[in-house]
Amino acid sequence: MRHMVMQFLSDNAASVHPALWQAMQAADAPDSPYDGDALSQSLDAAFAALFGRDCAVLWAATGTAANCLALATMVQPHGGVVCHREAHIEVDEGGAPGFYLHGAKLLLAEGEGAKLTPAAIAAVIDPIRNDVHQVQPHAVSITQASEYGRAYHPAEMAAIAAFCAGRGLPLHVDGARFGNAVAHLGCSPWEACQGAAALSFGFIKNGGLGAEALVFFDPALADVARYRRKRAGHLQSKGRYLAAQLHAMLKDDLWLANARHANAAARELAGAAQDRLLHPVEANEVFLRLTEAERAALRAQGFSFYDWGDDAARLVTAWNSRDADVAALARAISAL
Amino acid sequence: MRHMVMQFLSDNAASVHPALWQAMQAADAPDSPYDGDALSQSLDAAFAALFGRDCAVLWAATGTAANCLALATMVQPHGGVVCHREAHIEVDEGGAPGFYLHGAKLLLAEGEGAKLTPAAIAAVIDPIRNDVHQVQPHAVSITQASEYGRAYHPAEMAAIAAFCAGRGLPLHVDGARFGNAVAHLGCSPWEACQGAAALSFGFIKNGGLGAEALVFFDPALADVARYRRKRAGHLQSKGRYLAAQLHAMLKDDLWLANARHANAAARELAGAAQDRLLHPVEANEVFLRLTEAERAALRAQGFSFYDWGDDAARLVTAWNSRDADVAALARAISAL
Amino acid sequence: MRHMVMQFLSDNAASVHPALWQAMQAADAPDSPYDGDALSQSLDAAFAALFGRDCAVLWAATGTAANCLALATMVQPHGGVVCHREAHIEVDEGGAPGFYLHGAKLLLAEGEGAKLTPAAIAAVIDPIRNDVHQVQPHAVSITQASEYGRAYHPAEMAAIAAFCAGRGLPLHVDGARFGNAVAHLGCSPWEACQGAAALSFGFIKNGGLGAEALVFFDPALADVARYRRKRAGHLQSKGRYLAAQLHAMLKDDLWLANARHANAAARELAGAAQDRLLHPVEANEVFLRLTEAERAALRAQGFSFYDWGDDAARLVTAWNSRDADVAALARAISAL
Amino acid sequence: MRHMVMQFLSDNAASVHPALWQAMQAADAPDSPYDGDALSQSLDAAFAALFGRDCAVLWAATGTAANCLALATMVQPHGGVVCHREAHIEVDEGGAPGFYLHGAKLLLAEGEGAKLTPAAIAAVIDPIRNDVHQVQPHAVSITQASEYGRAYHPAEMAAIAAFCAGRGLPLHVDGARFGNAVAHLGCSPWEACQGAAALSFGFIKNGGLGAEALVFFDPALADVARYRRKRAGHLQSKGRYLAAQLHAMLKDDLWLANARHANAAARELAGAAQDRLLHPVEANEVFLRLTEAERAALRAQGFSFYDWGDDAARLVTAWNSRDADVAALARAISAL
Repeated sequence: MRHMVMQFLSDNAASVHPALWQAMQAADAPDSPYDGDALSQSLDAAFAALFGRDCAVLWAATGTAANCLALATMVQPHGGVVCHREAHIEVDEGGAPGFYLHGAKLLLAEGEGAKLTPAAIAAVIDPIRNDVHQVQPHAVSITQASEYGRAYHPAEMAAIAAFCAGRGLPLHVDGARFGNAVAHLGCSPWEACQGAAALSFGFIKNGGLGAEALVFFDPALADVARYRRKRAGHLQSKGRYLAAQLHAMLKDDLWLANARHANAAARELAGAAQDRLLHPVEANEVFLRLTEAERAALRAQGFSFYDWGDDAARLVTAWNSRDADVAALARAISAL
Repeated sequence: MRHMVMQFLSDNAASVHPALWQAMQAADAPDSPYDGDALSQSLDAAFAALFGRDCAVLWAATGTAANCLALATMVQPHGGVVCHREAHIEVDEGGAPGFYLHGAKLLLAEGEGAKLTPAAIAAVIDPIRNDVHQVQPHAVSITQASEYGRAYHPAEMAAIAAFCAGRGLPLHVDGARFGNAVAHLGCSPWEACQGAAALSFGFIKNGGLGAEALVFFDPALADVARYRRKRAGHLQSKGRYLAAQLHAMLKDDLWLANARHANAAARELAGAAQDRLLHPVEANEVFLRLTEAERAALRAQGFSFYDWGDDAARLVTAWNSRDADVAALARAISAL
Repeated sequence: MRHMVMQFLSDNAASVHPALWQAMQAADAPDSPYDGDALSQSLDAAFAALFGRDCAVLWAATGTAANCLALATMVQPHGGVVCHREAHIEVDEGGAPGFYLHGAKLLLAEGEGAKLTPAAIAAVIDPIRNDVHQVQPHAVSITQASEYGRAYHPAEMAAIAAFCAGRGLPLHVDGARFGNAVAHLGCSPWEACQGAAALSFGFIKNGGLGAEALVFFDPALADVARYRRKRAGHLQSKGRYLAAQLHAMLKDDLWLANARHANAAARELAGAAQDRLLHPVEANEVFLRLTEAERAALRAQGFSFYDWGDDAARLVTAWNSRDADVAALARAISAL
Repeated sequence: MRHMVMQFLSDNAASVHPALWQAMQAADAPDSPYDGDALSQSLDAAFAALFGRDCAVLWAATGTAANCLALATMVQPHGGVVCHREAHIEVDEGGAPGFYLHGAKLLLAEGEGAKLTPAAIAAVIDPIRNDVHQVQPHAVSITQASEYGRAYHPAEMAAIAAFCAGRGLPLHVDGARFGNAVAHLGCSPWEACQGAAALSFGFIKNGGLGAEALVFFDPALADVARYRRKRAGHLQSKGRYLAAQLHAMLKDDLWLANARHANAAARELAGAAQDRLLHPVEANEVFLRLTEAERAALRAQGFSFYDWGDDAARLVTAWNSRDADVAALARAISAL
């Protein structure tokens, strides 16, 4: 019985929110294929309302595709992208940036909690000789919330945006857990990604099925991305079902409610493990020091999660984490 | 009211079959992400039963992705793929083969009805000088049913397979409408793609939402394709919903029933337009000579379809073409 | 004794002009590596004087590299290049454009003598649907003189240039035998490539060793090309020896004298074979109808050349074709 | 007067050895183009004699091209190459590996003196999860002598070779200064690269003009490389001049004599600066701690060299370093 396992493995594995099933089935009548349908065509307006500014929005089936399509519009094949050494695009996308960017290079920066700062970016790009023998930076990519569940505060975003603008580098935000970041920060969506030329706004980890929003605040980039999306085999013929998911997420801020639920669950776990935390909990991921024996003890009680190296674990909450499961896990950790 | 239009535009625009909605929702309980779930893991066995031989199956969200992932396992970047001049991979995939195959070349062959023959393939590859100045063929790709709705009979498939084997060229079959071909031929699925190293088995045009099956009869190719799929951003994290679609299609041969329905509708239209047919109707596409005035007359009666050049039109039926609509269109054509 | 063969095989095989040996050896003193040396740095000025306008010049070791580097600055990976169906970049560069342009597509046009016209280009690009499913044209490439030794007259160049400008398509000129074209036309170098954004100005077939000039009339493209050249492994560390070749070629218009010699030899052969000519002779290539027996007869007399299909041959003259050899071949053809 | 500067900047800038000029001019008679000439065709035998084993040899104009062509035969686009963090292919080739390997990734290892060990390689590849989300290693590349002028002793080579064989990873050796390594080690050429599937055997820094030897000890890889070389625009039409350089280098072990001269000069400098050495001197590069003032003082005396960070300099000797210059620099350093 799969339900008997109390899942803290990954928000990737969570179920689809009922509102999305309804929205998809409501879109079942035939409409124009690809992104010519009414739902796809109205995404720009829906997201513009959310962000309070013009934007052009393309759906994509995965965060990897969204990230790489975004970067492919900013970076020439002979250029590079500054990102954190532990960024998802560097570590966990199977080399997708190398494919989509035609061999462009990831230029790896350091930073606490997998977050970048202007100084960290400068430390990577300033030593690059301005000659053809070294790959020059063409863009910067950060993750909001970061791979360690850390959020960039609006002031941090503003600083990075100003730095990037000063260096002429477009900024990409990988927002696989953007909703969780906004929920934590309590700011507007735009404040949480201000200065971005493109945002990969993730919904799949937050109750979606198979649709992320690739939001371009620079419309010229979107015009390129449309060709690249088709060329990558990501222009689904029944795109209306992806658009329907995104509209359902935006309606009444479902994305925010889902993220708040997941964040609250993560905070509850963190509260039970203050002395074990590897990172402050600012989204829906909790990284804890846990010995092998402790992890085994938790698993014996029915909790599932990933190891994080030899002496730690990652617990991930989701839009549908059950209160009872969360409370049980909090108790179990406290009791270790 | 969108339903008022009688759709013969594209099977791409058709609705999703109810059995697939049920199957997806039945898969809603959390399971391992990506393709680690039970449904994805059981695809090999399900398709092996259908084809009567071992195979390795990967889901993909689009036919373009399936085609290009298949070819990328067969063709080195400096090689070429023989295909028909009007093949979908040449004409309608936005240059995706150039992307996935890293610049490998499509070597264009001629053939009636967008079908290839051993002689047509030989006519392309025999003149290629065996030197480094010219791109050498590494694979052959055909479309079953073809872009003009023509089916390769088992004997034709056998001839192509023997030719390709003799030349050491792996064979790929683009089966965007493979079900329609099998339904027409009345043969086994394997007979309809015999000799293929890989088949892009399409379901989306046949009542699916967003899942095609990439079927490898050569398991070594599948091992490469798994890496390439992730790298292309096509490894969806909630893959169980794609696998669920494929299983639902195979169950009780739903794919075949759907295809038979569409084919019957196409035959009915063809029967009403014998003297207008540009191609024999062997699947669910009907290409008709129709003047601009005739097309306008049909559209005025509520029928939608694509022009095919200046003097013709393409009518496409689907798994859910309504009998009344088909009969009405047949009458309207007869009355022109 | 290799000299005993009277070579009409290829200008690619000809010797290096003595002035170039002298120039290279004069450059033997150490200087800055790559293209930082004085000779490389003064190429822009030397070619600007020749063309009567600003230009930025990069050396490259082969015409294939020059062509592809030029096109890579004009064409995005998802775009296409219009060229003739028999263009060298399509037929004889081993798929190099697919490599350098990251999978961009060659869009093949028709035209007598391997020459394009505005109408021929329009015939390719006008039917392309302006949607993401089809590869859009990003540039045009022509060959001056063409692959059949045909020259574009200044008025033809002007027409193509106007057409390309009107369509927003940058123009590339493959000038592997540009000198021969200019020598034939009797016009200025600029008139022979007017409107080009970039010219691959070939010298190797015209007495060089291993240096072509990639001439950009749009300096922004040159800035990109410099990175691409290094990235392609074409930034030689002892670039001064390549620059020396180019300077020696420009000095006292050696390139033009060499081309005139080769053209005159070709005209002499053509004069002896008026009724056999497949193409007017406007450069240093002569395409002749010759039966297998006739070709054998000529070869028995010591002449070497390539077959051109079953019933023809290609004779190529060079900067150092010996008058006696040319006269002997002309006599031999007349006597057939 | 350029000669007045005493050059320790780069062996890249050195002159061409007179024997090579003679060999090139001796090759001036027309011969088959590309690599069909007698000199190119006899390279395999010449290098097989040197290495005491079968090999297939292709010339290439640069070390970057040789390195990347070699690796492109070993690494699929979705794979990776283990190399040192300071390897030339990572740091100084303008992203060429990303281009030639179609986005494959460099997996960076640590090691003293820019040298790798089995343990260092294992430290990179062992933590890579064996799943599609992470780039898997396909090959290993080391530099002999290393980027800091360190040589791998035969026993070190044997250990790396055994490790790579055990892991199924083909080994590439970047031998930009391979001659210097062999001269230092006093071993056979094969001992200095044992276990390599391919060696980029550099001659340009050692008195060549524009020809490196890409030596394949696995002939199947050479068959692929020939296509890739053409596709990269590196198949020069007058290849006999490149082959002539390589033959001249092998004749009477000119390469070894040249390297010994350069190494002896480097040792002389090192002897004068024992307490300043950043790395043991095992080839023709000398890395010295030198303050800004000390560097200025040396430059004021007419010596040219590159800074190496803020507090050091790199001195490079060459096949033609003049004894008087070397002695003068040694004295000048001692006198600091």
